[in-house]
Order: sequence, then C-alpha cells, then structure tokens
Amino acid sequence: MVGHAFMGAAHSHAWRTAGRFFDLPRPVELTAVCGRSPERVRQAAERYGWQSYETDWRELVARPDIDVVDICTPGDSHARIALAALAAGKHVLCEKPLANSVQEAEEMSAAAAKAAAGGVRSMVAFNYRRVPALALARQLVEQGRLGTIHQVRAQYLQDWLVDPQFPLAWRLQKDRAGSGALGDLGAHSIDIAQYLTGQRISSVGAVLETFVTERPLPASSSGLSGTAGSERGQVTVDDAALFTARFEGGAIGVFEATRFATGHKNAMRIEISGSAGSLAFDAESMNELSFHDRSEDAATAGFRRILVTEDTHPYLHAWWPPGHLIGYEHTFTHQVHDFVAAVAEGRDPRPSFAEGLQVQKVLAAVESSAAALGVHIPVQGPPATP
Amino acid sequence: MVGHAFMGAAHSHAWRTAGRFFDLPRPVELTAVCGRSPERVRQAAERYGWQSYETDWRELVARPDIDVVDICTPGDSHARIALAALAAGKHVLCEKPLANSVQEAEEMSAAAAKAAAGGVRSMVAFNYRRVPALALARQLVEQGRLGTIHQVRAQYLQDWLVDPQFPLAWRLQKDRAGSGALGDLGAHSIDIAQYLTGQRISSVGAVLETFVTERPLPASSSGLSGTAGSERGQVTVDDAALFTARFEGGAIGVFEATRFATGHKNAMRIEISGSAGSLAFDAESMNELSFHDRSEDAATAGFRRILVTEDTHPYLHAWWPPGHLIGYEHTFTHQVHDFVAAVAEGRDPRPSFAEGLQVQKVLAAVESSAAALGVHIPVQGPPATP
Amino acid sequence: MVGHAFMGAAHSHAWRTAGRFFDLPRPVELTAVCGRSPERVRQAAERYGWQSYETDWRELVARPDIDVVDICTPGDSHARIALAALAAGKHVLCEKPLANSVQEAEEMSAAAAKAAAGGVRSMVAFNYRRVPALALARQLVEQGRLGTIHQVRAQYLQDWLVDPQFPLAWRLQKDRAGSGALGDLGAHSIDIAQYLTGQRISSVGAVLETFVTERPLPASSSGLSGTAGSERGQVTVDDAALFTARFEGGAIGVFEATRFATGHKNAMRIEISGSAGSLAFDAESMNELSFHDRSEDAATAGFRRILVTEDTHPYLHAWWPPGHLIGYEHTFTHQVHDFVAAVAEGRDPRPSFAEGLQVQKVLAAVESSAAALGVHIPVQGPPATP
Amino acid sequence: MVGHAFMGAAHSHAWRTAGRFFDLPRPVELTAVCGRSPERVRQAAERYGWQSYETDWRELVARPDIDVVDICTPGDSHARIALAALAAGKHVLCEKPLANSVQEAEEMSAAAAKAAAGGVRSMVAFNYRRVPALALARQLVEQGRLGTIHQVRAQYLQDWLVDPQFPLAWRLQKDRAGSGALGDLGAHSIDIAQYLTGQRISSVGAVLETFVTERPLPASSSGLSGTAGSERGQVTVDDAALFTARFEGGAIGVFEATRFATGHKNAMRIEISGSAGSLAFDAESMNELSFHDRSEDAATAGFRRILVTEDTHPYLHAWWPPGHLIGYEHTFTHQVHDFVAAVAEGRDPRPSFAEGLQVQKVLAAVESSAAALGVHIPVQGPPATP
Repeated sequence: MVGHAFMGAAHSHAWRTAGRFFDLPRPVELTAVCGRSPERVRQAAERYGWQSYETDWRELVARPDIDVVDICTPGDSHARIALAALAAGKHVLCEKPLANSVQEAEEMSAAAAKAAAGGVRSMVAFNYRRVPALALARQLVEQGRLGTIHQVRAQYLQDWLVDPQFPLAWRLQKDRAGSGALGDLGAHSIDIAQYLTGQRISSVGAVLETFVTERPLPASSSGLSGTAGSERGQVTVDDAALFTARFEGGAIGVFEATRFATGHKNAMRIEISGSAGSLAFDAESMNELSFHDRSEDAATAGFRRILVTEDTHPYLHAWWPPGHLIGYEHTFTHQVHDFVAAVAEGRDPRPSFAEGLQVQKVLAAVESSAAALGVHIPVQGPPATP
Repeated sequence: MVGHAFMGAAHSHAWRTAGRFFDLPRPVELTAVCGRSPERVRQAAERYGWQSYETDWRELVARPDIDVVDICTPGDSHARIALAALAAGKHVLCEKPLANSVQEAEEMSAAAAKAAAGGVRSMVAFNYRRVPALALARQLVEQGRLGTIHQVRAQYLQDWLVDPQFPLAWRLQKDRAGSGALGDLGAHSIDIAQYLTGQRISSVGAVLETFVTERPLPASSSGLSGTAGSERGQVTVDDAALFTARFEGGAIGVFEATRFATGHKNAMRIEISGSAGSLAFDAESMNELSFHDRSEDAATAGFRRILVTEDTHPYLHAWWPPGHLIGYEHTFTHQVHDFVAAVAEGRDPRPSFAEGLQVQKVLAAVESSAAALGVHIPVQGPPATP
Repeated sequence: MVGHAFMGAAHSHAWRTAGRFFDLPRPVELTAVCGRSPERVRQAAERYGWQSYETDWRELVARPDIDVVDICTPGDSHARIALAALAAGKHVLCEKPLANSVQEAEEMSAAAAKAAAGGVRSMVAFNYRRVPALALARQLVEQGRLGTIHQVRAQYLQDWLVDPQFPLAWRLQKDRAGSGALGDLGAHSIDIAQYLTGQRISSVGAVLETFVTERPLPASSSGLSGTAGSERGQVTVDDAALFTARFEGGAIGVFEATRFATGHKNAMRIEISGSAGSLAFDAESMNELSFHDRSEDAATAGFRRILVTEDTHPYLHAWWPPGHLIGYEHTFTHQVHDFVAAVAEGRDPRPSFAEGLQVQKVLAAVESSAAALGVHIPVQGPPATP
Repeated sequence: MVGHAFMGAAHSHAWRTAGRFFDLPRPVELTAVCGRSPERVRQAAERYGWQSYETDWRELVARPDIDVVDICTPGDSHARIALAALAAGKHVLCEKPLANSVQEAEEMSAAAAKAAAGGVRSMVAFNYRRVPALALARQLVEQGRLGTIHQVRAQYLQDWLVDPQFPLAWRLQKDRAGSGALGDLGAHSIDIAQYLTGQRISSVGAVLETFVTERPLPASSSGLSGTAGSERGQVTVDDAALFTARFEGGAIGVFEATRFATGHKNAMRIEISGSAGSLAFDAESMNELSFHDRSEDAATAGFRRILVTEDTHPYLHAWWPPGHLIGYEHTFTHQVHDFVAAVAEGRDPRPSFAEGLQVQKVLAAVESSAAALGVHIPVQGPPATP
C-alpha cells in the first residue's frame, strides 16, 4: 500500500478484515506500506498491521514478495505509481479519481489493458459501488424493476469549506488534487449514476464556482485538517460543481457536488426515476434504500425504506443479523473481497481503469463546459482502436 | 372569478373561508363566477357558493358590483382578461404563470403599474409564498440566520405523465399552456427561490426533454384527467426541465421540474445553503421546515424538523393548536387574506405583475438556453425606463 | 351547535364546508349556535356563519327548526344536553369523550338506543376515524393485509403542560374534564386502537401520574390558554397515563397519553403489528401511512410511506390532486359527511354512543387499575340484557 | 474468549481491531478461544484470529498466559464461568444478561466485588452504552440539557419469530436463555433507560405473552437460525414483554420488548422527555440522535437530527470524517477500549456486575408482576450490607 493517511487507514482495515468475515479464495498478507517520512510510515505500519515499510514507492513496487499494489496517495502520483506497478506485474488497486488528467488516465487505461492480457489485474476504488444498498439498487435496475430510466438526480453535499478560515489543504490545490468538489465528490456521483443506470453520460453542461478564493496556508503540511497559518494562498479548485447531463440511453440528469452545503457532512445522494419504479439513496443513511414500485396498487404504493441488512442483500451474509448496521469502512472490506476474488479467479475486476478513464473524461467535459458558459460538451469517446 | 376547474375550486374555498378565520379589513362577497358552459358554470356557482354566474368574461369584467377579478383560467387567456379587468378599474388576482409569453407579461406588468398609480391593485397567485413553512423560511433569511446564500437546490417532482397512455390534456399543448413542467412547476420553484433568497436569477443553462412525444387525444376536452380517446397527437411541451442558475447576489443553483419522477406526487422541494445556516422544505410535508443553524455547537447541531404550527408562525394564529396540520387549500386562504389586506390598506400586494414578468423572463431564458445546447443565457433585464 | 370554542370553530367549518366538496344527500343549514355569553355567542355566530344564536341550550334544543344538535362543550355537560336533545327527537353529534363517567355514558347510550328505534341518530365525534390514513389503515386490516393482530403500540404525545406556570385551565379540573391526558388524549388512542384492530380491550394495567400538582389559577376563565393569575390551585387530573392492555382477540398493547412529552405537539401515534403486516401512523404527519407487507420478498420489503392523497383513498376524491395535503379540520368535514349521509339514509352512524360508552369503560378501568397499583382490571362488560 | 457464535464473532473483531483505531494503554493479544466442538473451535480460532483454542472452559480459565476472560456463551453458563475466572484472578467481561436468575447474578456480583478488592475487574457487556449516539445522550442528560426527567418510552422491536415455523432455538428455551424477548432485548432497554436517566427503576407492572406456544425443534442444534425439523416442542419463554415502570427519581416509563414486531429488525428505540428537552434514538439509525431543546425560541424549535459522527462526539475521534457512518460491531470495539482502559488504569469498568445484578432484579420483578396480573412489583433492593 502506498500512502497511509485517511484512505490508508480505511484500506488497511479492509485488508486486515476481509478474510475474517468473507471466504477469500486466497489469503491476504499485509506485506508492506510506503510513505515518505520514515518515522510516520513506521508508526503507520505498526498501527495498521503492516509487516514492513518502505519510504520510496519504487522500492515497494520492486519487491518480489508483493503481488498487489494499493495506491492511496493524492491524485498527482496515481499515474506514475500505477504504471510502474503494472509494468512490474503487480495487480493494482488505485484510489479514485483515477488520475488528475484525461491524458494520464489514458496511459493508465492502456497499460491496464495491456497488463490484463498478461493476467495482471487493475481496478479503481470507487468504493460506493460496494455499499450494499447501492449494489442492491443496481440489482433492481438490472432486474427491470425501474423500467426505462428517465431521470437521475445526484448530489454530493459536504460543508467543510464553509468556514473561510479553513486552511488551503492539498485538496484545494489544482496541481495536487486535479479539481475540487468535482473530482473528489462528483467523480463518485458520476461513477454511481453510470453504474446504476447502466448508461454512460454523453454530454454535460456545467457551472463551477469557488466561493472563497483565498485561504490561509496550513501551518503544517499534514493535510486535510491542518491548522491555519498566517500566510494566505489562492484556492485553485472549485468549491461547488453543478451540471446537467444527457446519458447515452436517453436519460437526463442533474448533478451537484459541493463542499458548501452547510449542515450536510457526507450526503452522497442519488435518486433515479424510471418508467416502472424509482430509487433513492443517501450515504448519511447508508444502510437504507428507498424504492418505489409503480406496479403496486396506488392505494398502497409508496417509497419503501428497505433496511439493507438482510442475509440475501449484497455482502450482508458476512455480517450481522438483520437490523444491525454496517459502516463506512465496510465498503472497503467489500472492495478487497471483490478485488481478491477477481484476481484469484482470473477475472478483470470492476470498475476497470477504462471505466475510471471514462469518468475522467466526464470530469474534463464538465470543466470544458464550465469554461464555455455551460454549453453542453460531448464526453469524448474512446480512442479509435488501431 | 373566471374559470372554475381545479384552481377555481381552491380559490372559491379561499374566498369563502378567509373571513371565517382571519380578521379581514373588508368583507368578501362571492359575487359572480364565469365559465363558458352555462350548465357547468351554474353548477359551479351553486357548489362553490357564488351568488351569480356569467358565461362571458367580458360581461363579468363590466359588472359594476364587482371590485376584484380573480383569473383561474389556462395561461393563454390571462393577458386579455387581466388587461380588460385592470382597464375597468378592477383589482386583479391572476393565477401563475402570469402569461404564456414575455410579451404578454410585459403588457400586463405595464398595465398593472399604470393601474396601481390609480389605486387599482394586482397580484400573481404564487401560492407557495403563503405556505407557513416557506414564509417562515423567508423570515429566517431576512433575519440573517442563513448568512450569505451560497446555493439553492430546487426540485418540483410529479409523476402523472409516466404512463404513456395518459391523454394529451391542455397542459401538454404549447398554445394553451405556454410550456410544460417548466411553466407549471418550474415557475413556482423560480418564484420561491428568488423570494427566499432575495436574489434574482441572472442567467440559466438548461435542458428540456419530452420523453413521450405522442399521446392519445382526450375523449372529451374536460381537462387534466380526461379519458384517452383513440386518436393521437403531438406533445408540444417539455416533460422535464433541468437548469443551472446564477443569481445576482452570487449564489448558484440547480433546478428540476418534472412530471416523470415516479412515486413523487407533488414534491416541491427546495434547499438553501448559506454561510450561517441551511433550510430544506418539501411540499409533501408542507407543515415542516428543516433548519440547520451553523452557530450551534457541533456536538448538538443538526437539521431541526420545525413543525410549523405554532401561534407565532406566519398565518398560524388563525388556525389550530400546535401540532395540528393545515393543508394545500390554506395557501389560497392566506393568499386571499394578504390580497384583501393590501387592497384595503392601499398597498400593492406581492408578488406583483412585475415579479410575475421577471419569472416569465427566467422561463424564456430557460427555453432559449435549451435551444442553444444549454449555454448560459442572461435573464433579460427590465425594459429601459423612457 | 352548543359551545363555540376551539372545537366549535372546527365543527362550524365542517358544517359550512362539507357540502362544497362532497355530494351530501341533504343540504346543511347552520341554524343556530349556543353559548352562555350573549356577546360572545353573537360574535361566534357571525364569525362562523350561524344564522342565529341562543344563550340557553334548552332553548336551542326546543327549537322546531333544528334537526341536529352538535355538542362541543366540556364533558361535564354532554350527558344532560344529549339526553334532552334525543328526547326532543334531534339527531345528536357529541364530542368525545362521551361523558365524564361510565354512569352518564350508560344513560346516554341507553337513550341513544331508544331514540334509534324511533329513527333518531347519534354519534360520538372520534374524529381520528376520519383521517384518511387511518381509514385506509382500517381497510387494510379488514382486507387481511395485517393477518392476525399481535400487538398495538399507541402514544398520544403533547407538551403544553411542561411549563409549571401554565395555568389551571378547565381541562386540569376533574369535575369539568373527567380526567386529564387520559380522557382527552387516551380516549382517542383507545377508540382508534379498537377501531383499527376490530378488537375490544378486555383488561388494562395502568399508571397515572401528575408531575405538577399545583398551578396558578387562570386570570380569566377563558379556557385553554388563559393567562396565569396570582392564586394557585390543585391539579386534579393526570398529566400522563400509561397502560398495558389485553384485547379480546388475543392482541396485547401499550398505551401512553401525556401532556409532558417535550417537543411533541400532537403526536397521536399508533403502530399495529400483525402476522402478515404492520402499520404505523403519526398525526404530526397525518397525510401518511407507513405500511409493511410481510409477503414481500425480504430483499425489497420495507415500511412504505404511503402518501394518502390518491383519489382512491378514503375521502380523497373530494379534495386535491395527489400529493396535495389536507389538514386537521378536514377530519371534521369528513365527520359531517358521514353523519349526514347516515341520517339521510336512515342508518346508525358510527361510532355509536354504545361505542363511546365502551371507551368510557376502558377509561374507568384504567383509573381503577392505577388506584390498585396497576393490577389488570377487566373492562366492564355490557349490562345484561333484561 | 468462551463461545464463538454470533457474539463471539463480534467480540473477536473488537479485540482484533480496538488497538488499530484507539490508543490502548495495554496491547491486546488474542490468546485463546474456547468451544465444545474441537473442529468448530479450531476453525473459529483460525477465522477470528485467536492464537490457540480450548474445548473446556476450565482449561482456558486455568491458563497462566491469559489475563482476561470474555464470556460469550448462552446465559445458563455465565455464572459458573465467571465465578471460576474471577477466582483464578482473571478480569472478566461477560455478555448480558448477566445471568439467568437473580441468585446467580448475586453470586457473581458478590464475587466481582471481592475480586475488585484484589484489583481484578469485571464488566457486563451492555454494548448499547458504547453507541456514540447513546453516549452523547448520556452527556446531554448529565449536562442538564433535559432538565428533570419525566418520561421514558423504550421499545426493542424485532420480528424473527413471526413465522410460526421458525424453529425452537435455544433462545426460546427457558432453561438455556432465562427468558425470551424480556432478557434478550428488554435487558438492553432497562440498562440504557437507567444509564441515560441516571435513575433506577423502582417498580414495574408487566404483561408477558407467548403468541406461538409450540414450534418445530431444530433439525440441528446449531442455534439461532437452524432449520426446522419434524418434531415439535414447547416454547417456554415470552415472545413479547410489556411493562410500565416507576423510577426512583420520579420518572415513569413504558417498555416493550418483542420478537413479533413485523417489519422491525432491530429497532431498539428510546425516547426521554424532560422538563428542558427531549431525546430519541433508534438503533436502526444508530448514527443519529434526535434532540429537542425547549429553551429554543418556539419559532425555530424542533427535533434535531444530530448525525453523531463528529470528532467531538464520544468515540468518534478514532474513526472517519464527519458524515461517515459506523456500524454495529463498533460498539464492541468501543467496549474493548473502555474495558482495557479501566483495567490498565486500575479502575472498575462500568457497567459493573452489581449493575448487571440490578437489571436482573428488574427482569425478575417483571416476571413476578406478569404472574400477578400486572400489579406493580417493587424491584428488590440491594442485599443488606452485613
């Protein structure tokens, strides 16, 4: 594993825990973690249960006792680590968004396709696909329970930037993070909307906004929640991203990703309206799926609050009796399960780097549209096969 | 009152009832109702408590025993009736949207301004302003409880068109209705968003969509819920309207109006995020306002479900003890109260025809943007004062 | 109508309005209202639309131009007015609880049975039966959608007595009100629980509590919300009533009625669990019914939020399109409809005085049990038929 | 750890995980797990990460390399294991309810008191105290935010016995489980109600009911979810327990524990009404606490949905950013943290065996009351100190 901040803690837990609840086809060993500070990575290794550590990811990638590289760093280093790992024949799990640019993502996707031909697997960590309620939602769409999909409304609402004194963390710097709420939050919404509907977004019309353009520089560089220092710098990413979308299958949608939605901490919400039914989800109530079945008699129809904790629900056989909730980190444990299962069975896990690239293209189209007064911009198609 | 369908029933109830619960500064008499069919208007007069009836609105407008004309007809006749009524010195209450075009609305607004100079009043019936929860929301914004407004998310979700066999009622015909979900539902959202924020929308980027382009013609012409006949016709309005918006004061917003949101019957929802607090409302729970106060200690902060049924809440002193709900028609009763009070006190009631015109301009900009691939179109400013 | 306070306002509205929305088989005239203060009853007559007024209910009952007497006074006068009205051949609608004692209620029930033989009708005003969501709940039970009823949990939560300075209104005096939260609120819960389940309560085990035993006497006698004076008096009724219950059909239940549930204004809640399904209702969201169907596949089962605003729902054909709410006073309008229809069609309306008597017996058993340390007390059966 | 079924899985996870997220003052080693079947306990040891296993708990208790014994067996073996472990100088964590009888619990409590004098600690595993939302609730009560506590309403609703073909698992046998819904679910409600209010229950008036008195014997003895065999046996415990309660400090309460609440999977709900505020919690939304502050202006008062995921909330500094949920097993992880911290710091952890005994006495009083037609039975006081 490369990187050991917030995401690293979550991924470590998942690697440690998956085999305790699921029957994994292959045992998992936490061989080594990598970070730049020797002292901090040593502590992380101990805390999170890694057997050893490295301070240079190149060393990690070169180690013969490693089969899988899990990339949990900021977006600006995804491409080079992933390319090296794939080249070294390691299976790769890479945090989202796949990269900071379409060009990087294209290189990664090409490398992944080439590696797959040799049996080396890769996957993007869009962990919301592993929320049981959303996996159930996907099943319902696949079963035709929603009929023809007409509309999507997706919101990803956080509020940690409302305070103008919140410091200029790396996530607010374009060169590190690629974009702001758009790539951090909107990427999840885009992936989930496409995953649930089974339709790709074909064009977008967008508005990007930065409400607070200058912020105090962090006193230290320790990331998200560092204390504010006395110097100030420019915010170079969006605070909020709004866009309308058209999907290839005829659906339309509205998307909003923001870090200024006061009172909402992690409201990753999505609603889908189809000709036969509707769905609604909110990550702040992640164990629930709301479902409306239009074939019901009108007298007793209504959105049902499905508590997604039954044995028969996706991933739930491994956990607790009905009515007992699971939390955020379980999505990563499920992700490990799915990744390891695919690797062991010689299948390409999903979402692939190609899917990650396509999300990157939607993000790029959003930025292009916002720069062009919101005119709908087609999402760039796949490169012509030679 | 001109027109006696769904809206006429609601308005009649309001005229009959306002004085029973509120202290009106002037007594209200239900003098005459007007409709084209003598038999049906006679029945409506009896049912709804009107003392007499007319079959030609020109006759109604000419009657000397009438002080107020209430226009409840489809949008294509608003302008001519309102202009005549104002010319005849009658105060006018006109259903929304004000007209079917900006041009008509401009004539009406100009006529209203001229009439106001002579003490003749006019108002557009954006009845959601009279929902106590939304009136309370406006008070909170005015008191600064939300701080600087950053974002608006507005949805107006209905589902009565999901069935492709639902007949081609007048609301689906552009020449009668002006537009579809946009003008019928979106106009409410636009008015409320501007009313609550105190900011006017300055530009919009839109997508309009008609999912079902051909429908059975109604067997009879009796309106909304007529039975389907065997012939078919073209739907000439939008089924769904999506747009992003910029407001004059710096806020941004997303809007959705649709008749295809399966399972949602009248979900007129709006959320506003500000630097000091947030609000959320859903008309399907119209006695509630959700409010988040960012000045609260984080340990006990959270969206509050305010049950808007206290004596001190807008309009509620007239009704029941706390916890006892009011319904949809109360908004019209409140509207009558506010209109009559303004007329009696010689004030111009709100929203004025000028405000109705401005909403019309936003609707027009939405249509222009949709026709121009969603590029942001400025909302046309007020005509230059000569 | 006798009495013109809060309940009188609600009943007047209902008498005025029922025929405007429903096809009543007989026209309704608001002939006369009765109150003790000539000035106040005159104002009430004018405000609420009554053609005349009386200051002695005996005069009212004696008037030949009156067919129906509607009793909206405190419980201590129900019996004598109802008995006189029935004796005079007037149909009677009487507010709940039917009386302040079982003995009074027995006399009334006997008189009603005798009058019914002569075509004179009587009904108790348990208005919650006219809430569409609860009428729908009854339909679902009747259709077997809940299977065998196992459990009932009923709460009626208000909070207007939490302030110890709230004055000693008539509702806090045993000689006027009969009991406290028990008779005022609990009577509704008892009636609804029996109505929905179709089972009568057979025994109860209770706790009654008065948290604030002394309160300021009201400065004036004007009822519920009078201002506090400087003298103090004893509270002689319960602030809260708790009881467990057994039903004749094998169900068991828990009941709570309280005026000390801080934050709850009118949370009349009931949940019913059966072998085939479950129901939940809360009057603070009175347009909704929550329903769980156990025959659903577990993967998509869940409590549905049924928005009870469809044409096919009880009473709703008379009102607005789906998704548009109704309020508290509609229950009284529905009650008038049902009462008038029964009278016109020569049927005994429900709930009968006999049903009101049975509720009174449950209330009495609750008081007996509370006085006997909560031991289960059988609800006294009907008097032996001679 | 003794026992390795459902509870054993949860406890194992907690022992493995606590030190990964919390700074434990002493390292935790998973030394040995104990179960009767050699094959099954071996598998459990491997699956859950225990270094060794035993098939006789006496061997386990005798091992010198063990400091702590965690008892996860059915209630009928708690006493003998705990007594032996305490006698052997091991710290003991024991699942709830503490025992199957007051007598056993008294022995355990006495032994725990004696052991504590020698620095040996013991604790009952009422894990709901470790739900952050409930720990926050306790803080609010302690801070006086609720004022004087007037009322408690507690429900613990499950539905796994509604199907009459569900087999007669050990939890339905009095000799194994002690009681049914009462001890399994009601014990949690009793502990939490007393913990939150800071008041002990002084008397109870109860109804116990067994709806399905005969069930198929399980085909195998593997516990909760075994398949039904062809023979049948008597259910010897309650399916549902209802009781009213009086608390020492003057509060009153209603309690319901049931396995027949169709549609509710694990609705452990509690509401507390005080003179200054109110609280509500439901384990099916365990990351939320609903709080009403009566000192708020009525115009903006309302129950707040506090998402209990802030850094400053109990236990949450160890987990994820705000808005990211935790699940059921986290309560056990927190429990391990609290237990280990107390042991390390030489404090007696809470809830003590004495507290477990007091809950046992409430359970006994409930059974006595139910056997005496519901008359209120005082909860037996502590034994006189000699």
